[in-house]
Amino acid sequence: MEVEVKIRLKHGVADPEGENTKKALNLLGFSNVVAVRTIKTFVIDVKVEGGDRDGAEERVRHEVEEMCKKLLANPVIHEYEINILG
Amino acid sequence: MEVEVKIRLKHGVADPEGENTKKALNLLGFSNVVAVRTIKTFVIDVKVEGGDRDGAEERVRHEVEEMCKKLLANPVIHEYEINILG
Repeated sequence: MEVEVKIRLKHGVADPEGENTKKALNLLGFSNVVAVRTIKTFVIDVKVEGGDRDGAEERVRHEVEEMCKKLLANPVIHEYEINILG
Repeated sequence: MEVEVKIRLKHGVADPEGENTKKALNLLGFSNVVAVRTIKTFVIDVKVEGGDRDGAEERVRHEVEEMCKKLLANPVIHEYEINILG
């Protein structure tokens, strides 16, 4: 099962990479670029063993949430969104 | 106008960040994680001056493609996808 995890910076947290990208684009002549924000996405392949598919989806979502809490996201500055791609 | 640019590694290009994330997840006990790939997303706010909306969308898409070629993506290893969010 393929799961997409989007890690965004929380509202109000500085995004230096986005800000610098905006500056660089402006310097390159793209003067109508007003803001740039960055999002990190992980696409995770999870092996699912037998069982019913609906139950599996629920289990995988729960497990990926654990992954976010333990490794992928920093709750102080990040918010995350989990999408099951199928 | 808000535009999303997804920068993916081309097929066959090594993704060390994804591989290390997979290893770390396995070590944390998530043994059913088979693979992890990373995608970088830029959300770009582009100022659009007057004119018709359809034409503007086409113009902005073209311009963001130029941004990818000039700064955001490396054509040797990356492929990009542009979505107008509205």
